[in-house]
Amino acid sequence: MKLTKDTKILIIGLGVMGGSYAAALTRAGYRVRCITKIQADIDYATARGMIEYGTTEIDPGLIGGADLIVFAIYPGAFVEWAEKYGHLIRPGTLVTDVTGVKSDIVPRVQALLPCGVEFIAAHPMAGREKSGVEFSDPAVFHGANYIVTPTEKNTEEAIDLCCELGRVLGFYRISILTPAEHDRMIAFLSQLTHCIAVSLMNAESAGGLEKYTGDSFRDLTRIAKINDEMWSELFLRNRDALLSEMDAFEKEFHALRDMIANGEREKIREKMRRATAKRTLFDKPVI
Amino acid sequence: MKLTKDTKILIIGLGVMGGSYAAALTRAGYRVRCITKIQADIDYATARGMIEYGTTEIDPGLIGGADLIVFAIYPGAFVEWAEKYGHLIRPGTLVTDVTGVKSDIVPRVQALLPCGVEFIAAHPMAGREKSGVEFSDPAVFHGANYIVTPTEKNTEEAIDLCCELGRVLGFYRISILTPAEHDRMIAFLSQLTHCIAVSLMNAESAGGLEKYTGDSFRDLTRIAKINDEMWSELFLRNRDALLSEMDAFEKEFHALRDMIANGEREKIREKMRRATAKRTLFDKPVI
Repeated sequence: MKLTKDTKILIIGLGVMGGSYAAALTRAGYRVRCITKIQADIDYATARGMIEYGTTEIDPGLIGGADLIVFAIYPGAFVEWAEKYGHLIRPGTLVTDVTGVKSDIVPRVQALLPCGVEFIAAHPMAGREKSGVEFSDPAVFHGANYIVTPTEKNTEEAIDLCCELGRVLGFYRISILTPAEHDRMIAFLSQLTHCIAVSLMNAESAGGLEKYTGDSFRDLTRIAKINDEMWSELFLRNRDALLSEMDAFEKEFHALRDMIANGEREKIREKMRRATAKRTLFDKPVI
Repeated sequence: MKLTKDTKILIIGLGVMGGSYAAALTRAGYRVRCITKIQADIDYATARGMIEYGTTEIDPGLIGGADLIVFAIYPGAFVEWAEKYGHLIRPGTLVTDVTGVKSDIVPRVQALLPCGVEFIAAHPMAGREKSGVEFSDPAVFHGANYIVTPTEKNTEEAIDLCCELGRVLGFYRISILTPAEHDRMIAFLSQLTHCIAVSLMNAESAGGLEKYTGDSFRDLTRIAKINDEMWSELFLRNRDALLSEMDAFEKEFHALRDMIANGEREKIREKMRRATAKRTLFDKPVI
């Protein structure tokens, strides 16, 4: 299968991510249909020309007629969907997703889908703090990372097509990682940072400090505004990897705490110099 | 004493902060002179019209002739200067500073300066990641906070003049706090966040993750690029307040860790909702 302008694309779930996929693909000249729960979201997307057609029904004709299905729903809902309606997908169809955790999801979905239906997982790393189709914006893909996470069940052809989808969507860098590598990376770069921001925000006991805050505190806590339904699910579905990163951070933080308590200035400076050097690697590339 | 265009202002230390003060005050029509260690910094500032005159000498005439002296050097260096050269300051002169910690510094400097010389402490909360006069920019004061931290030794007149200086420099909000209140606030909003960023950066053990990073990780670790000489001094001079904030954060973080380990989803969601609500208070005001 190749991605062409005739490929019938079906998006399941028209939230902020499904909506951004729909808008990017429609703009690139592809035909996009969707199934989602709320009629108002379909009306919104249709009125703006983001989709060709949408329904709130589990329409067997629409599902069976799709060449490429993108699941843009929460991880648990995705597994449930595959269990209940997976049999409606025609052999030869390629299935992909946008799920933020992989080891807990990919093998289960691969086992649930009918013979001949290939599921190739992907994670578009372009989050937004807001949810809902009205916050869709394909511009968030520019400069962002798109990770394809194949297992030994996947074909080269499906991996290539999934990478091609990332390019069409406008991602800056397309990478391939195993589900386990992905989950470790996401535990450190994304989940741990959200745990830190939430804890820092909750640690403010005095009250009234917002009057004095500067940009660095704002930057550090921006992600403390968090979709609790989605993130609590992502944390728990990546529990082992996340706990391992949380423990490593706690150890570093506590070591610094003890250096401060003991007045060990040279050791503190060494930690700071090391952090400064490492952070330089993470500077934004000039695109 | 009133701040007028005839007030003879002397800045001690022409780094990024002293340079920004000099540029803002000169632009506002005040006469600014300076004493600093490196002749090249004076040449830089003179060539750009930031100062009227500068010297690397401890010039008794220049010091004795000043009406307002601003110390823009590291805290320890400031105390040392007051000890060695404080006697050169003429009674009636007002002294202020830019130091980021207060309880450890203010009473000591007040005790060291000659009778008749009033020291009124202030903290311009407009940090930059870069140091050196060539990174001076008075624009960083716009939208930023300026905190005056008087003790019972200070007069109303000096407090008023110090607030007036903050307005002339272009600060957005001028506040008055006791040194202890200031130090607790700065421990939470600034020092703790730097400890977190440094520890997070150092906790990355795998290597190579910069390829996958997104903006939220970059925002959270921007301040991990840190001037180790200055910040190690600030941490240790505010040790008790900082340790208390570090311990409170550690407790919150560990509680979240245990909820994740125990799969307590409702408790995790409650923490997230609380953080989201609190963070809203810290949104940047529209200026």
